Amino acid sequence: MKKHKMALLGVPLLALSATASAQGSVTLYGVLDTLVAVGQGSLTDRTQLTHSGNTTTRIGVRGVEDLGGGWSAGFVLEGGILTDNGAGMASNANNQAGAPSLGAAQGLTFNRRSTLSLFSPWGELRLGRDYVPSYSNMNTFDSFGNAGVGTAIMALLGVTSSTPAGIRASNSIAYHLPAGTLGGLYGNAMIAWGENAQGTPNEDDGDYQGVRLGWAQGPWNVAFATGKLKQLGNDSRPRNYGFTYNFGTVTYALGFADERLGGIKGKGIQTGVEWRVGVGQVRASYGSYKRETGLEPETRKLAVGYVHNLSKRTAVYTTFAHVSNKGGAGYALNGSTTAANQSSRGLDIGLRHAF
Amino acid sequence: MKKHKMALLGVPLLALSATASAQGSVTLYGVLDTLVAVGQGSLTDRTQLTHSGNTTTRIGVRGVEDLGGGWSAGFVLEGGILTDNGAGMASNANNQAGAPSLGAAQGLTFNRRSTLSLFSPWGELRLGRDYVPSYSNMNTFDSFGNAGVGTAIMALLGVTSSTPAGIRASNSIAYHLPAGTLGGLYGNAMIAWGENAQGTPNEDDGDYQGVRLGWAQGPWNVAFATGKLKQLGNDSRPRNYGFTYNFGTVTYALGFADERLGGIKGKGIQTGVEWRVGVGQVRASYGSYKRETGLEPETRKLAVGYVHNLSKRTAVYTTFAHVSNKGGAGYALNGSTTAANQSSRGLDIGLRHAF
Amino acid sequence: MKKHKMALLGVPLLALSATASAQGSVTLYGVLDTLVAVGQGSLTDRTQLTHSGNTTTRIGVRGVEDLGGGWSAGFVLEGGILTDNGAGMASNANNQAGAPSLGAAQGLTFNRRSTLSLFSPWGELRLGRDYVPSYSNMNTFDSFGNAGVGTAIMALLGVTSSTPAGIRASNSIAYHLPAGTLGGLYGNAMIAWGENAQGTPNEDDGDYQGVRLGWAQGPWNVAFATGKLKQLGNDSRPRNYGFTYNFGTVTYALGFADERLGGIKGKGIQTGVEWRVGVGQVRASYGSYKRETGLEPETRKLAVGYVHNLSKRTAVYTTFAHVSNKGGAGYALNGSTTAANQSSRGLDIGLRHAF
Repeated sequence: MKKHKMALLGVPLLALSATASAQGSVTLYGVLDTLVAVGQGSLTDRTQLTHSGNTTTRIGVRGVEDLGGGWSAGFVLEGGILTDNGAGMASNANNQAGAPSLGAAQGLTFNRRSTLSLFSPWGELRLGRDYVPSYSNMNTFDSFGNAGVGTAIMALLGVTSSTPAGIRASNSIAYHLPAGTLGGLYGNAMIAWGENAQGTPNEDDGDYQGVRLGWAQGPWNVAFATGKLKQLGNDSRPRNYGFTYNFGTVTYALGFADERLGGIKGKGIQTGVEWRVGVGQVRASYGSYKRETGLEPETRKLAVGYVHNLSKRTAVYTTFAHVSNKGGAGYALNGSTTAANQSSRGLDIGLRHAF
Repeated sequence: MKKHKMALLGVPLLALSATASAQGSVTLYGVLDTLVAVGQGSLTDRTQLTHSGNTTTRIGVRGVEDLGGGWSAGFVLEGGILTDNGAGMASNANNQAGAPSLGAAQGLTFNRRSTLSLFSPWGELRLGRDYVPSYSNMNTFDSFGNAGVGTAIMALLGVTSSTPAGIRASNSIAYHLPAGTLGGLYGNAMIAWGENAQGTPNEDDGDYQGVRLGWAQGPWNVAFATGKLKQLGNDSRPRNYGFTYNFGTVTYALGFADERLGGIKGKGIQTGVEWRVGVGQVRASYGSYKRETGLEPETRKLAVGYVHNLSKRTAVYTTFAHVSNKGGAGYALNGSTTAANQSSRGLDIGLRHAF
Repeated sequence: MKKHKMALLGVPLLALSATASAQGSVTLYGVLDTLVAVGQGSLTDRTQLTHSGNTTTRIGVRGVEDLGGGWSAGFVLEGGILTDNGAGMASNANNQAGAPSLGAAQGLTFNRRSTLSLFSPWGELRLGRDYVPSYSNMNTFDSFGNAGVGTAIMALLGVTSSTPAGIRASNSIAYHLPAGTLGGLYGNAMIAWGENAQGTPNEDDGDYQGVRLGWAQGPWNVAFATGKLKQLGNDSRPRNYGFTYNFGTVTYALGFADERLGGIKGKGIQTGVEWRVGVGQVRASYGSYKRETGLEPETRKLAVGYVHNLSKRTAVYTTFAHVSNKGGAGYALNGSTTAANQSSRGLDIGLRHAF
């Protein structure tokens, strides 16, 4: 049997708009986003084929079942994919450092989201692994949707991106306000456990609490979030707030971050616009971030980009970004390296397809 | 493109009852089961968000194709998921100890079942990784379906649960009696290979043979299984037998296990009831297990639980269990630890959803 | 809830012929192929339950979306499965040696193919991980489709099979000629990056370029491919060419390989036939491979096989192969080992099912 004959087989998943049965629906979905990413720094440059320049790549299955009386059950299982090589991404079991790096041997996990929910008229109870409130909230103010070289730097200290439970927490129980019934009010509160053995010095490590509260009405979307993660001698406390205002074809965003990691504080500001132009979208943002330690290292980033939608599901895009550093900072873009106080540039050119 | 817009995309998998075509069908299915599990012991207590308190979590694809003349082909690919953090579960390639522990980096494998079958009027030939006969059989007598804190302890020595090939075997060839044509008789026989290099001392390690035979007619279900696994200096021989009797809304179960691991013998007894009450199900079981070595360590467990079905697919549940130890045994529940001859208690409260 | 009741749940994927909507389709597909493989050599023999004796096992999702004007977008995510134990297969992130071996803990990756494509009337732009041109091309001349004990040995040095990027490359950008519009001409060109840090001695390792060009018209299919992979001190250069001719029920194949790995050269020849006989297919091939080093080790292989199609999707098959070695070669089949200049035999008996 020749390989090309295999292409005739397979189970077509009918691409209809959701004609869910009375009992509910289950959906297979995903995003592939592959790009050429160029980085330039004062020390080394880099060119890569990589993933997630416009939207983070993923594959997932989600479902919802109507239980009657305004109640329903639902789930999401969603994992990241390195579309440049096909590997998956690891999860984190206990909201603490130390997950192994398996590179291209990393199999698919549902690292992005693994949740089981019970919805009622009074809100949603959500169990499992999910975004922490402060990360969902920060994303509101990022005109580049936290993907690619244009990603906001308002939380550069890493409290909301590279620390454990900075983006997501495992072992979490969350309550989400019901959608659409509170006059624009939305929000959620989450607790998560590190699940360490009792009686050890790091007994509480990985324990997390956080909350998000926002209000979206007409052109306004105003949101605030804060959280706290225990990590032996290095607790983190992310916090951010801001708003977006929609002028019609233009959406303006302004956000502030104020974070603490152990004894270090950091402050960020992020502002940007998204402008719909025909089937395209122009995006621009400016952000700065300063650590309140030593020489007060500071980084500033300017990013501009264009997304050309070939359809509702498919787009080509490009983003250019420039960062400048001072106070000893040496932040560089797209895998390049740059010396302290030097600048760096990055360019993304990619293709994104959702299904 | 904002993340929440992604939710409009995706391929809905129509949740119809199986309108399989003439050629056959392929089905995507799964179970998510997430719970709070509390354990108390004389030494340490523990509270976790964990998985599989009522039904073991999984995601799978299965299919069947009619080949005509009473013949068909079929497959099952099914993997476990840690729904509290989204990681997968590892398989075991050679029915021997030593599979690495990758924690939250463990990607999805089809560790639960990876089988390809040819069905004929005379039975089924099944190839790949699957339950061993003694494990499938033992499950018959467990009123808690081998999930959660109420799980039967009739095979506590581990011959049928924690030893290699105690639950499943890879590299197996099995024959299953045809369903529904033998007056209630059912059963299967399996051989599996460890596939070690020839001429080494452990050449036969991981080689397995087992058989199960049962009879289900009217209210009766009587079943027996035995098996043998080669492990250098530590061969295991699980065996169990018993029956269930269905009184209508109540099903009574009684089972016995008699196992050997190297030079150690263990004996277990398990009894329980499942009682349908409206949309709910009350379950209770009692089991004891004794090793015939030294002080003859012995553990006894009492479990009671209630499952409230919100629909055919979704349930909330709770289970309470208590164990007592003597003869030096120190078995503890839900991640707690307890001193020799001390007791332990566990409580599960969870949500289960199947799709 | 009893496990066997679970079987009633699940989302049937309607097995209809592709009634894709106007916007496109998404398809879940796969191949399971499980076999008993016996190997005999002068030193040790071996019997295993293994996978991929007729067609390499896999599971995948693919989709295509019509963008209008002759343009479309498409993707393929496809990963290998060890159907004998349910584990996945690893990818390779940088086209270089050193991917870890995780055995049965290896989770599913999309190691076989992870591509995102933009199709236009002038051809296809394909990004991600895919076959390198020389491997796709070599497969044309292999009457056993590069699966099982009959697999062609025309590239035994491994330049096109076991070296990094010998089969597939990650981080690749490829251009494929449009299908069906160039009078039988087909082909593709690929570049791929190793993405090493700049300024290191192995800066270029994993960088690959390759090209394939063929012509298929009436009974003829003539094809040529070449490529080059940088590996510090050990660059590889695969090359192969040949043709197939279809006499009606019989297809004849003849191919030549000429490869270089560091300072070693190897040359192979492969010839074979595929003969359709009712619902069956008889296959036979002969190949030889010689390294131009030292005693000029040489291996010859004769293979014969029969595939009996039980349906379009399901087949049982058997293949027998014999190899002879000289010049110090000790190539052996199906996991057996054989001394230098000794022969080896292998037998496959298996079941293959595609969905």
